[in-house]
Amino acid sequence: MSGILISEVGPRDGLQSVQSIMSLEAKKAWIAAEAAAGVTEIEVGSFVPAKLLPQLADTAEVVAFARTLPNLTVAVLVPNLKGAEAAVAAGAHKITLPLSVSETHSLKNVRRTHAQMLEETRGIVALLRSLPPESRPKFEGGLSTAFGCTLEGVVPQSKVVELAEALMSAGCDEVGLSDTTGYANPRQVRELVRAVRAAVGEHALSGLHLHNTRGLGLANVMAGLEEGITTFDSSLGGLGGCPFAPGASGNIVTEDLVFMLEAMGLRTGIDLPKLLAVRDILRQAVPSESLYGFTPDAGLPLGFVAASAA
Amino acid sequence: MSGILISEVGPRDGLQSVQSIMSLEAKKAWIAAEAAAGVTEIEVGSFVPAKLLPQLADTAEVVAFARTLPNLTVAVLVPNLKGAEAAVAAGAHKITLPLSVSETHSLKNVRRTHAQMLEETRGIVALLRSLPPESRPKFEGGLSTAFGCTLEGVVPQSKVVELAEALMSAGCDEVGLSDTTGYANPRQVRELVRAVRAAVGEHALSGLHLHNTRGLGLANVMAGLEEGITTFDSSLGGLGGCPFAPGASGNIVTEDLVFMLEAMGLRTGIDLPKLLAVRDILRQAVPSESLYGFTPDAGLPLGFVAASAA
Repeated sequence: MSGILISEVGPRDGLQSVQSIMSLEAKKAWIAAEAAAGVTEIEVGSFVPAKLLPQLADTAEVVAFARTLPNLTVAVLVPNLKGAEAAVAAGAHKITLPLSVSETHSLKNVRRTHAQMLEETRGIVALLRSLPPESRPKFEGGLSTAFGCTLEGVVPQSKVVELAEALMSAGCDEVGLSDTTGYANPRQVRELVRAVRAAVGEHALSGLHLHNTRGLGLANVMAGLEEGITTFDSSLGGLGGCPFAPGASGNIVTEDLVFMLEAMGLRTGIDLPKLLAVRDILRQAVPSESLYGFTPDAGLPLGFVAASAA
Repeated sequence: MSGILISEVGPRDGLQSVQSIMSLEAKKAWIAAEAAAGVTEIEVGSFVPAKLLPQLADTAEVVAFARTLPNLTVAVLVPNLKGAEAAVAAGAHKITLPLSVSETHSLKNVRRTHAQMLEETRGIVALLRSLPPESRPKFEGGLSTAFGCTLEGVVPQSKVVELAEALMSAGCDEVGLSDTTGYANPRQVRELVRAVRAAVGEHALSGLHLHNTRGLGLANVMAGLEEGITTFDSSLGGLGGCPFAPGASGNIVTEDLVFMLEAMGLRTGIDLPKLLAVRDILRQAVPSESLYGFTPDAGLPLGFVAASAA
């Protein structure tokens, strides 16, 4: 294994969790700077009603801008068919629909049962299949609360597998596993990845969305790597923090993730000093928000040579 | 693999790094509370001149107290033969002599070359062999800066292996590897553990002393676990912080380490809620010092069952 895809989710997952509303110009600067540092996939926003998430109200404009950047996959989140229609109209390259394995969480979060969410999934698939193949976005079903839920507690592995199969049957191109609550541990990551892949096939599960709520984020990445996972979501500066743990980042921090992978000899294609410099844009654009990350504080080791630079 | 030994180093490594001087009574309360939570090895202090580390001037009294606690291995650090004599007089069960693989660091830290440190090692071995076996402490050579040095940069694996062999030839019972500078990455941990074990034998290397300077501490633990390492040093609340990274713990945090292992089904024998409660003693005894850790802030997952409680 030599190449790992880092999918930056800060402009969506980070910004939706903060009070500050980042200006369109700052979003553009952030996304352009990360793309210039070598990041090849960025989740730039979410097509949800502006009333619910005013921070992401300009997602269509952000997508339009991000599409102009070379070699960048422009990803967005959508909660339903209506969101997917907007994503298609804006020209997103990739669409993720989150489906919470905890039905309690699903009802609370999007007010829909599993059956209703699978109906949305089929609607989105029909929409995408009506498009010419060259303008058809990739469609991922994101299994959230896959490692446990703050409302339901333990989430059975069998339920995750069942919904992964249902999403693939409904026509998703792939599924992803999200540790929404920061409950995952490395053993569980290995076991769940194996179980889901056994059900839907190796190529239908390539990505993990991990949080660092209890400090296990990068240990969980290690477990994923050892199972052959090649795509990891992360957020620059851990923007957004974690609602369950003041002082902790929610998403794993892109800077620390890239440092770990590059130090291990795994190429991310990302220039670490350039990536670290992107933090300045966030600091200026949303000065009241905390930024996280160990590597940015500690600096790179003396004599460090990144795999991508070797 | 089912049992993992956590060696708490906070009373030594944590306290030597803070400005505050903890009272003897507080140290006793801390050590007793951790032992009561199930911690079976604690590095309680260091036999260095009180002028250099006034925080640890009462190590002999701390050892005397800790020896009265049931099922506790009382460990100390010594910089030289004189320290070892004091450790033996106090009745320590385990002695660690640090040897920095970076000779530049060794000269700066203890003003001794590798050859001089190996001479100290032989002197300590002679002292220990003069004791009756039942009162002879275990003697570990701790290879510090084994994963890189802030002064020398990259530390060659061959140098670590050479010094591990030299320590074992000098008569140490075992060696340990320390990521003093927080430079280690999981791949390096695996490779270095393999290389050292290939040279000195599997049983001569059972422990790792890892830092979390760049956030990789628990990922490095994972790598160690997969190589069969069974002893990990850590510090409650990450006390002492990291001189190279303000805001980061130096040592990996005992609470997060125990949570990860127990969540993975690996028994530490430690009661996690009791361990978390020990933080209160630190908070009261050294109120100006920062405490670290993700799990203490986030709390245990809903429905969590520790392996040691199952």
